[in-house]
Order: sequence, then C-alpha cells, then structure tokens
Amino acid sequence: MTTPSEFSLIQHYFEQLTPQRDDVKLGIGDDCALLQCPSDHVLAVSIDTLVEGVHFFANVDVKSLGHKSLAVGLSDLAAMGAKPAWFTLALTLPKVDENWLADFSQGLAELANEHGIQLVGGDTTRGPLTISIQVHGFVKSKLALRRDGAKVADHIYVTGTVGDAGAALQLKLQKDTDRPELVEGWFDKLTMNGKKQTASLNNLDIDYLEQRLQQPTPRVEIGQKLQGLASSAIDISDGLLADLKHILDKSHVGAELDLEKLPLSPVLMKIENETARRLALTSGDDYELCFTISPDNSIKVEQLLAEQCQCIGVINNESGIITTQQHGKRVELKGIGYDHFTV
Amino acid sequence: MTTPSEFSLIQHYFEQLTPQRDDVKLGIGDDCALLQCPSDHVLAVSIDTLVEGVHFFANVDVKSLGHKSLAVGLSDLAAMGAKPAWFTLALTLPKVDENWLADFSQGLAELANEHGIQLVGGDTTRGPLTISIQVHGFVKSKLALRRDGAKVADHIYVTGTVGDAGAALQLKLQKDTDRPELVEGWFDKLTMNGKKQTASLNNLDIDYLEQRLQQPTPRVEIGQKLQGLASSAIDISDGLLADLKHILDKSHVGAELDLEKLPLSPVLMKIENETARRLALTSGDDYELCFTISPDNSIKVEQLLAEQCQCIGVINNESGIITTQQHGKRVELKGIGYDHFTV
Repeated sequence: MTTPSEFSLIQHYFEQLTPQRDDVKLGIGDDCALLQCPSDHVLAVSIDTLVEGVHFFANVDVKSLGHKSLAVGLSDLAAMGAKPAWFTLALTLPKVDENWLADFSQGLAELANEHGIQLVGGDTTRGPLTISIQVHGFVKSKLALRRDGAKVADHIYVTGTVGDAGAALQLKLQKDTDRPELVEGWFDKLTMNGKKQTASLNNLDIDYLEQRLQQPTPRVEIGQKLQGLASSAIDISDGLLADLKHILDKSHVGAELDLEKLPLSPVLMKIENETARRLALTSGDDYELCFTISPDNSIKVEQLLAEQCQCIGVINNESGIITTQQHGKRVELKGIGYDHFTV
Repeated sequence: MTTPSEFSLIQHYFEQLTPQRDDVKLGIGDDCALLQCPSDHVLAVSIDTLVEGVHFFANVDVKSLGHKSLAVGLSDLAAMGAKPAWFTLALTLPKVDENWLADFSQGLAELANEHGIQLVGGDTTRGPLTISIQVHGFVKSKLALRRDGAKVADHIYVTGTVGDAGAALQLKLQKDTDRPELVEGWFDKLTMNGKKQTASLNNLDIDYLEQRLQQPTPRVEIGQKLQGLASSAIDISDGLLADLKHILDKSHVGAELDLEKLPLSPVLMKIENETARRLALTSGDDYELCFTISPDNSIKVEQLLAEQCQCIGVINNESGIITTQQHGKRVELKGIGYDHFTV
C-alpha cells in the first residue's frame, strides 16, 4: 500500500504523547507492536469508529474529538471492569493539517495519560475523516462484568446522570444543521420559556451539556470497583432503555424502572420533565454505566460508590421493561419507541 | 452513539463465520471480547485501514476485498514471525447491502479459516466505505522478527516474486480510471508488442497479475519458520526499496542489491526488463517478506524454504541502497525515486 511519506510521519507525531509502559516490548514503528499480557488476567478488547457527519459534526472542537475518540473505548473497558493498558489508532484524514493533528492528539493524549493507556500502533491513511480506536485492558476472567449475569431481584443502577449528551445533540442539530433527526419542538422545550416549558437554559447550562456530549467521562474506576460485585454491566452509548435491553436479552430477564429515580443533572431538571425523561431514557452518548447488583451486595455498593450511582429499578422475571412512578404506578411511555424494547 | 439496528445486526452476520477458538473466553456481543493470551508469548498486534478510492477501486471484486482486508494484517503478523489468533473489524458502509456483505464476509472467512484466526469483535457504522482490521497473534518475545536486527554481511532475501501487484495496478489505473498516478507509457510497455517491447500479455497473464493484487498471499508460515533464524524482517507493502529502507534505518546499516537476482514471475519476465525491475523495486502491495539472514544461517534457511525465497543482496556498512548487475557492476537507478532511499 503506497502511503505518502507525510502520512507515515504522522505516526511519529503521536509516538511520545502517551504514557510509556513497561509491558510494551515494542511500540510504534515495526510491523506489529509486541505486548506482554499479565498471565493471571484475560485481555479485554473493543474497537469503535467515529465518522465525520455521522458521529460528530464537521465543526466539532477537535481537541474534544481526540478526547471522545478514546473515551468511547475506555467506556467499553469500564463496562467490563477492565484496567486500560494500550490502544491503537486507525486515522483516515482528507489531508495532513498540522493544527488539526496538534489539537486532536492533545485531546487524545490528555485522556490517555489520565488512564495510563499507551498508543502502541496505528495506521494513517488518506480519505474521508474516520477515526477507529481499539482499546486493550486487563481483567481477571472470573471478575469481568458481562451482560449476561443479571438475576431476578437484582437492583439496577446507573452512574452519574443521563440525558445530558442527548439534550446537547438536539440543541446542536437545530442550531448547526437542517438535519431531520431533530424531533420537532424539542428545541423549544429545551431552551425557551413559555406556557409549555418550565424553565430556560442559560449559556452556562448549554456549555455544560455540550461538555457532556463532546467530552464524556468514561467510568473506568467505577467499573473496576464493581468487579466481583455487579452481576452485569454495560455502558450507555445507545440510550438507557436500549442498553439495559441488551443486559435483559443476554440474561433472559425483565426490568421495572422507577421514572422518578432517573438521575438527572441540575441542567436537565430545568427543562420540561417529560422531555428530560425522554432524553434520559432514550438518548445515547452519555457513556455512563448501567449495572445490576444483588440485594445482598447493594448496601456495599452504595457505600463504595457513595453519590456516584443511583438505583433506578429492579430485575424481574417478566420480559421487556416496564416503567413506573408514584410508588409503582405503571406508566406507558408513548412516542419514544418504547415498543421496540419489549421482547 | 446511536446505531441503526440494521447495522448492529451485521455483527451477527459475521459472528459464526470464522474459527471458534478455545482461547476466546467471550467473543462478539458484549462491551469487550475477553481473550486468553499464552503466558510464554507476547501479543503481536497491527491495525490497517483500506479506504475506497484510495486503496481499492469502487468496482473491486468484493470477495477479493474481504480477502485482502485480512491479508494485509496477516502479512504484518508474518513479518513478525507471529502465529495468528484473533482479529477485530471496524466496517464503515454507505448502506447495508446484503449481497455486498455476503461476498465480503465470504472472502474474509475463507482466509480466516485458512489461518485459524477468529473474529472477536467489531464496530459497524454508516459512512464512506472504510475497512479497518486489527490482527492479534502470538510470538515468543526473543524469537520475534524485528526490523532492527540486520548486521553487516547478512544476506538479504525476498519471498515469492515482486512487482506483480504493481503491474496489475498500472493496468487497472489505465483501464478503469483517468487517474494521473499512471506513469506515462507503462501500459504500453506492459501489454503491447512493438519496437520497444519484448512481449505482450494475454488474458491469463493479466488474470494472474490481478489475482496477485487483489488476493495477496500473506507469508504466515514462512514468517514462523524464520523465528530464531532471520536477523530482521518486514513485509513488502510499500515496495521492496522502501521497505528494505525501513530495515536499514532501524538497523543502522546499508545494502547492496543484485538486480539480476530480483525474483520476477514468468508473467513479469514477459515485459520489458527495465519496466519489470522498476515494478519489482518500487511498487507495493505484493505482501511478500523481505528478511536478512546471517551467513552462518543462510544454507539452513535455503534448505528450509527451498524455492520459496531468493537471495537478492547483502547488508553492508554503507548508508542507503546500491544496486548492481553483471557481477557487481554498479547501476544507477534513474527516474524511480531512488534518491529518496539514500540515507
């Protein structure tokens, strides 16, 4: 494959940016990297791709894009309870733009250093802007957090708050583009005062939401703390209902969620309640963790994680997800594609 | 990241196509795959991207594309002397086309089965056609074939024949496109009889060249046989001179190549000799191995590999590459970018 030398040189640009680990026997610059896996752990790997115009806007903040490109992979390691070790980067660029590379690599390197994960290899090619990152981490096989272990009566938890990234995306879609993904009227409900709205968002609020969309925080430490405690876990990339549904499918169980317990950020609590709940349940990109804990372990987990997680429901032996409020009163969720989530 | 469900379903399409290995503790369908590395080996990893319109034509044979997408990674494992184990696939598609997926996955699966390598994870997204594959293999750390071990007086070898894929690319560029990459007049030299040409190529010849371009054979077994014997190795993806140059740079040595020893296929021997040599030295995509062997090990390697490799030169303590013919008479290589390869 003939590669312009300027593209080969990019590799050197990234080479020293991330932590230098002792278990990397050979890093960037040969046909393969050579990596030493600890013998008492298994290797956890995940690959994710971000495509311009699909996963991010062309006018995205480039440093944030570097952060997010790695964050989505770290979030997968978190959801497995794995400790980050190495990553590879396949970067397809329309042209070599040094400013772009400087910003992108800075965002990438800052998050990599925070989590002690080293860039060990990659490929840089010319083409439409596309970023694929594979992350590698370690976890003891028996302690890994899988999707298939949820049991009836387990409590369902979610970390942080949900719906923020989705709110930011809706605002950006209306502001930046004329794309039809915008659900009609959401923008008004999110930002404007009026008869149907409860509050308006100020610039600080909007900055907060954008930060949540563009620079998500992978819950890597929480994932590792849940080893041996959580019966199942997943990260919320597609939306709480959709991702919880993956756990239910793999574990052959159902769930009951208490809508009043959904953890909403102070900003999301400012907007119309129905809209906020809809975002919390269905919008993706939050990169929080959803996990299940046996009743016996619940108190321990709540002590361990303090304010970092919220119990939102319970696993049952039904199929699909039912939602309740006001002490168990069943609520139908209309118009948010809930039907898709019934088994 | 909201992913259309049809795209998620593609994962299931690929799930059972490749070998099922015992060291895969958890495969496709969770946040990460969980993989058991052998404790006495290191993990060799490499990621490569193919982009439509850059690395392959839009009218490429799709089954061959599946083969080649994996072959380029297997070739990296071969160049390291590593044994293939697992791969991941990040596939970006403009639309879900079942015929395309059937052909692509068939080409991929056939080569995967041949080498016992299992697909353990992936990501499928919407966007311009882009294929990133990361391969994973095992090699004993001390036996890995690196680029930095070539010593003065080592013999330089190349497997198979070189230049075939480059010839096919030139023919396709002139036939299929009006792209300016075509070096003026190459097509005539490759295909037509006339005063300046020595032979013409028939359809079988052209089929052979296209097969070499579109379905390269990664030299995985040869790479493993070279463990503990080769002092350095690389796979030829950018062209023999360019890739040999990587060995020389990393090993701080020079090389002398005998142009008369370049291994040319019977088809390439039909065309004008200067053109054939130029292709053999500078065109990429052959995915043969170039490696160095100490004089003491040379006889052993030639016995071991029989007709599978050819000695083409020797490592010296100069800088860069010099080329000779007729028993050591130095030859200047004009007009093929040779200057780029002088240190």
